[in-house]
Amino acid sequence: MTSDAVRIGVAGLGRAFMLMLPTFRNDPRIKLVAAAAPRAASRAAFEAEFGGRTYATVEELAKDADVDLIYIATPHQMHAEHVDAAARGGKHILVDKPLAVSMGDADHMVAAAEAAGVHLIVGPSHSFDPPVSLARTLIESGEFGAVRMVQALNYTDFLYRPRRPEELRTEEGGGVLFSQGIHQIDIVRLLCGGRARSVTAQTGAWDPDRPTEGAYCALMDFQSGAFASLTYSGYAHFDSDCWMNDVGELGGPKSPEGYGQARKALRDLDPGAEAQLKSTRTYGAGREPLAPKHNEHFGPILVSCDRADLRLTPDGVEIFADTKRSFRKAPLDPAPRKPVIDAVVAAVCESISPAQTGRWGRASLEVCHAILQSAERRKTILLTRQCGTTPKEIHS
Amino acid sequence: MTSDAVRIGVAGLGRAFMLMLPTFRNDPRIKLVAAAAPRAASRAAFEAEFGGRTYATVEELAKDADVDLIYIATPHQMHAEHVDAAARGGKHILVDKPLAVSMGDADHMVAAAEAAGVHLIVGPSHSFDPPVSLARTLIESGEFGAVRMVQALNYTDFLYRPRRPEELRTEEGGGVLFSQGIHQIDIVRLLCGGRARSVTAQTGAWDPDRPTEGAYCALMDFQSGAFASLTYSGYAHFDSDCWMNDVGELGGPKSPEGYGQARKALRDLDPGAEAQLKSTRTYGAGREPLAPKHNEHFGPILVSCDRADLRLTPDGVEIFADTKRSFRKAPLDPAPRKPVIDAVVAAVCESISPAQTGRWGRASLEVCHAILQSAERRKTILLTRQCGTTPKEIHS
Ligand SMILES: NC(=O)c1ccc[n+]([C@@H]2O[C@H](COP(=O)([O-])OP(=O)(O)OC[C@H]3O[C@@H](n4cnc5c(N)ncnc54)[C@H](O)[C@@H]3O)[C@@H](O)[C@H]2O)c1
Ligand SMILES: NC(=O)c1ccc[n+]([C@@H]2O[C@H](COP(=O)([O-])OP(=O)(O)OC[C@H]3O[C@@H](n4cnc5c(N)ncnc54)[C@H](O)[C@@H]3O)[C@@H](O)[C@H]2O)c1
Repeated sequence: MTSDAVRIGVAGLGRAFMLMLPTFRNDPRIKLVAAAAPRAASRAAFEAEFGGRTYATVEELAKDADVDLIYIATPHQMHAEHVDAAARGGKHILVDKPLAVSMGDADHMVAAAEAAGVHLIVGPSHSFDPPVSLARTLIESGEFGAVRMVQALNYTDFLYRPRRPEELRTEEGGGVLFSQGIHQIDIVRLLCGGRARSVTAQTGAWDPDRPTEGAYCALMDFQSGAFASLTYSGYAHFDSDCWMNDVGELGGPKSPEGYGQARKALRDLDPGAEAQLKSTRTYGAGREPLAPKHNEHFGPILVSCDRADLRLTPDGVEIFADTKRSFRKAPLDPAPRKPVIDAVVAAVCESISPAQTGRWGRASLEVCHAILQSAERRKTILLTRQCGTTPKEIHS
Repeated sequence: MTSDAVRIGVAGLGRAFMLMLPTFRNDPRIKLVAAAAPRAASRAAFEAEFGGRTYATVEELAKDADVDLIYIATPHQMHAEHVDAAARGGKHILVDKPLAVSMGDADHMVAAAEAAGVHLIVGPSHSFDPPVSLARTLIESGEFGAVRMVQALNYTDFLYRPRRPEELRTEEGGGVLFSQGIHQIDIVRLLCGGRARSVTAQTGAWDPDRPTEGAYCALMDFQSGAFASLTYSGYAHFDSDCWMNDVGELGGPKSPEGYGQARKALRDLDPGAEAQLKSTRTYGAGREPLAPKHNEHFGPILVSCDRADLRLTPDGVEIFADTKRSFRKAPLDPAPRKPVIDAVVAAVCESISPAQTGRWGRASLEVCHAILQSAERRKTILLTRQCGTTPKEIHS
């Protein structure tokens, strides 16, 4: 740990924080120095492990003079208020995806960070996964020509994992769009240059017991001329990880024995016990993820360029070129979300923004809303809040 | 061979005929009794093998009193003229996909067959493949609830197989839509009840040397409420048969050694030699397909129902239900296109139509055109010529 490590305060010690934990623990470039959490048990666990200061509210955390950046990992609908507090405290911000639920909140957050002169990064998101970056590098090399078409699909059990009540209410950011679609949209935008032009989509809400969108198909096109097909199902039937070398989202092995577990576990639960169950996966209470053998991923993604298709895998990128196929390995770090820390350090120490700024997150959020609107109104939605992949473009 | 076998006359002894040949040879319910082909060598080969009568034109074949049904396997743009001749001769008709190139031709053909009181069947098409029928049976059982979403994708080397010049000119029915998309559309329509409501699509024509559509993404929705995402690339890069147990379209094994072969073979060809090369794959000249170990297929297809996802494989249907997964085997016949003969025999002998009638083929053709139009005009195309999956609906 160097003396000039970036000092991070954490807002929200729940599931998202758990997923960042191995990365935080393993990276000497950052130091967890403070946290805000309503639950005393989480605060105690944080103090015991990191020896930092803890607060009951983000307001207080944002006033801690010893904090450089606040990682906001509270529920979606609180991101706006917490980003606002952090910006007012002059802190740089890493806010977990999605940036916000409403476009109004997103506007406010972008403005607040810009007014305060602080970096606002939206992440982690699977757009930071090393195979995605590698694909982007391959694309930018120009070797394979322009990106023409992207196919992204993901079939998971998202809807049957334990949820807070608002995670099943679309108006409050529930359903697969804001929590899951946002990853896919981030990745596809990154591979297609960022500036989407229009979205046409259909959504499915097929389980009356969990009455929010659990699936969608979307067709997007981009100013670059590329187009993309995005499909997601969170209904826990077919599992598309079988097309990702049987590696799960977090980089670990997927075993067939797990089939149907998410639904089974919920089925026997008392009403009301579900949010409780979710909190067993929180910091200081639940099991922690093991160091994975593969990179994280967000389902099968195929990028068709003029002279090759690129297939993202948990280990890198398969290149299907005109006459031969080859494989390029992506770096694998024991700290799976290291690229997020790379972005934090570059922003705080060198003032270099990643693609995934507040404006970027707002543009991806616009696509989520466009998917919902397109499905509801049965029409193509033209996008107006898009931005490119380079921060220069973002701030211009 | 029974004495009341259906007596078939074949129009066009090219590649499509070659693909039906093993099936024709192995089925005692039918008998090839005549053929029309411009090439003397093909006619001689036909006479040598089947001992039937041959003609230089379909007009003449249609007057052969000993023919019950004509299988039309001539190039797309001739289907209309040849269906017309067959109907005037009072023959039942099996016309290879697509029914026609223009909607006007399709209208004319449907009317001609109906006026003549003959059956008009559009096939073979991969919608006849046994795993597709099995999926349809599973859906109709009601066990898994309604069909909600279908994902269909196929990445092939279609654009680089040897082609006649018009197969690379969209106006004449060239490109992937009319020859390949039509299969995918047929299958998806069959699984979703047939009556599509609208199509929004993007197409790609990325190789200036073969300037026709080689790829598309389409989003369809259906009167049933189901929606579907269809993706196709014929650019010979990624091969989606790796997601079909490494089984190729015709049911045979796919080996990695074949990578890039289609493009390589074309690259060294003299201009003009390509159509010539195609004709080496014709009857009496080329290698014939081996009896495959698996069913034919048209790429990965996932059907999301209320209570299960169905995944079509070359051997059957994997059922991913709420709590368990299982596999249902589809019948495998040494004559791979037997279901087409089943349809022919049922139509000619019992006057029972399959789903794939002339009206059905016209509805699928409407979707091909809608994909092209949607991409060109950048808007959703509403469909007006759709029909359901049961012949009762078709003739009502
Ligand atoms: N990037 C990823 O892989 C990933 C994974 C999971 C969640 N997330 C995101 O993280 C966010 C949180 O989701 P989650 O699944 O971790 O939920 P969670 O319920 O597990 O965690 C949220 C935490 O915030 C705490 N909290 C609530 N109000 C607070 C307040 N006023 N101040 C401080 N803390 C407060 C809760 O006590 C809880 O521990 C969401 O926006 C979600 O999209 C991202
Ligand atoms: N269902 C399938 O799997 C499949 C596969 C290939 C082709 N097809 C369809 O079959 C049709 C033919 O395509 P193909 O690839 O076999 O082409 P092809 O060029 O290999 O065969 C067409 C044949 O028609 C003959 N022909 C041309 N004019 C004729 C005429 N006036 N009378 C009689 N014969 C005539 C040609 O000599 C040639 O042998 C197309 O509509 C195509 O879509 C279907």
